[in-house]
Amino acid sequence: MNVIEIADAADGRLADYLRLRDVNLRRSLEAEHGLFLAEGEKVVRRALHAGYRPRSLLLTERRRGVLPGIAADLPADLAAGPEAVPVYVVPESVAEGVVGFHLHRGVLGSFHRMPLPGLGTVLAGARTAVVLEDIVDHTNVGAIFRSAAGLGVDAVVLAPRCADPLYRRAVRVSMGAVFTLPYTRLTDWYGGLSELRERGFRLLALTPAPGSVLLPDALAGAAPDDRHALLLGTEGEGLSSRWLDQADVRVRIPMAERDVDSLNVTAAAAVACYELVRSH
Amino acid sequence: MNVIEIADAADGRLADYLRLRDVNLRRSLEAEHGLFLAEGEKVVRRALHAGYRPRSLLLTERRRGVLPGIAADLPADLAAGPEAVPVYVVPESVAEGVVGFHLHRGVLGSFHRMPLPGLGTVLAGARTAVVLEDIVDHTNVGAIFRSAAGLGVDAVVLAPRCADPLYRRAVRVSMGAVFTLPYTRLTDWYGGLSELRERGFRLLALTPAPGSVLLPDALAGAAPDDRHALLLGTEGEGLSSRWLDQADVRVRIPMAERDVDSLNVTAAAAVACYELVRSH
Ligand SMILES: C[S@@+](CC[C@H](N)C(=O)[O-])C[C@H]1O[C@@H](n2cnc3c(N)ncnc32)[C@H](O)[C@@H]1O
Ligand SMILES: C[S@@+](CC[C@H](N)C(=O)[O-])C[C@H]1O[C@@H](n2cnc3c(N)ncnc32)[C@H](O)[C@@H]1O
Repeated sequence: MNVIEIADAADGRLADYLRLRDVNLRRSLEAEHGLFLAEGEKVVRRALHAGYRPRSLLLTERRRGVLPGIAADLPADLAAGPEAVPVYVVPESVAEGVVGFHLHRGVLGSFHRMPLPGLGTVLAGARTAVVLEDIVDHTNVGAIFRSAAGLGVDAVVLAPRCADPLYRRAVRVSMGAVFTLPYTRLTDWYGGLSELRERGFRLLALTPAPGSVLLPDALAGAAPDDRHALLLGTEGEGLSSRWLDQADVRVRIPMAERDVDSLNVTAAAAVACYELVRSH
Repeated sequence: MNVIEIADAADGRLADYLRLRDVNLRRSLEAEHGLFLAEGEKVVRRALHAGYRPRSLLLTERRRGVLPGIAADLPADLAAGPEAVPVYVVPESVAEGVVGFHLHRGVLGSFHRMPLPGLGTVLAGARTAVVLEDIVDHTNVGAIFRSAAGLGVDAVVLAPRCADPLYRRAVRVSMGAVFTLPYTRLTDWYGGLSELRERGFRLLALTPAPGSVLLPDALAGAAPDDRHALLLGTEGEGLSSRWLDQADVRVRIPMAERDVDSLNVTAAAAVACYELVRSH
């Protein structure tokens, strides 16, 4: 392994890891270099398993012990030889100086992004999908990926304005599900749903509003080969009227009479994915 | 209404609202005065509806417009007269100086806590309950209250070390469900579950580990009068072996083979509450 000890937080080789909580800096830095960060041994190893190629890794001295495990997950050309990926080992104080807070997990990886697959590729073998409209909160996006992958949904489709699943917090909250669950992004918000319908997907718009069909009723009688997509909206406004109108059916998860109008979008996603997978 | 304009962030009457992100300060201040904070017009009004008595309210000038609505929700003795609750109206900059960040919702209420009811009271009419073991994250606790209330679970029981549902962030994430869903806290972690069993509750320990029964199978054939409690554990370790052993049955939500071992506890809670309420 190409292990390099660094003792200076200003060392330019650590630039990928700079000021992780500075959202604006991170957005431009990550876009410019086409990189994303994974945090924690488990999530870094999941990124490697999924075939993402690291630009470098950063470990605090205390976490040196993770090296053999990570080495085993590296493709041969990146483990040794001229292309070996640099593994920066730094004192905790240096890590803190770079990232801007105490790095208690002690393991970070900077990875090359891969081009997003097209909608056709993502949906090719899929019978179930989740479609997220304008969910801008990274925690929510990460949590929905974790639930969708864990419960067995086949794909995720994002509206143009939806938050980036490879943003550090989304990656972490997803526990790495963003690496394994195929996803892509629509380029066209207005007309994008018709591409799903053309591929045979029945579009279920999730909305707590009255006048909708109960989720289990909407799925009753689904055949194993049917294709269903669940559309989920934002915390404040819910789905746009455009998307509500484009859906085949509006469905709701029954709410009790308890002064609670709706579920959080991640809770609604979990329940809906659970029902959907079970009905298939 | 007893409206008082304040232009100085150091004014002692604003002490209840000091440095909302300073967790240690808030813990001791709120414990000492037996208070909790609600944030945003909707949540403040829900606290009033639920019968919590305000110590004071804080509005930014821009949000003066909420006053009539709030006045209508105040009990008569607090709306006018010698006991009228003080409503502090402050410029945005003063609000920011007090709470420590930009208060974009612009509405805060400081409320008296009420004594927690006993387990007997909370479970008296309940057929379904959620029991949280040592979930220390306020966001998770708040989200579980929202889902449990929204889906129609009757009560929540907290282990001694579980996070405080009336902590500001839990209140906000719950959208006020912490005010309406009856809950209490066990004083005894080790033996506390037997009190639930004595009250006729069948204890379902939620765990993703193999060797458990599928959730729908565990609930199949439940009669409407059966009493069920869902036990949920922490993100890292899950339920303690003590609680797993004390449960009547271990149940799991089926996971797909996709490198995701478990759901986030809030997603697991949503799915389990949904199944539980439906089976009753
Ligand atoms: C917090 S809700 C949005 C509430 C918004 N006021 C509305 O009426 O849609 C966020 C998203 O979660 C989903 N959702 C929440 N509760 C739901 C329910 N009971 N039934 C169906 N979908 C729900 C919807 O997709 C919604 O867009
Ligand atoms: C993130 S999980 C804990 C994972 C932990 N490693 C374990 O094995 O329990 C947090 C909690 O959510 C619940 N949970 C998560 N996924 C579940 C599943 N598939 N079936 C049942 N409960 C689950 C359990 O109550 C668990 O204690």
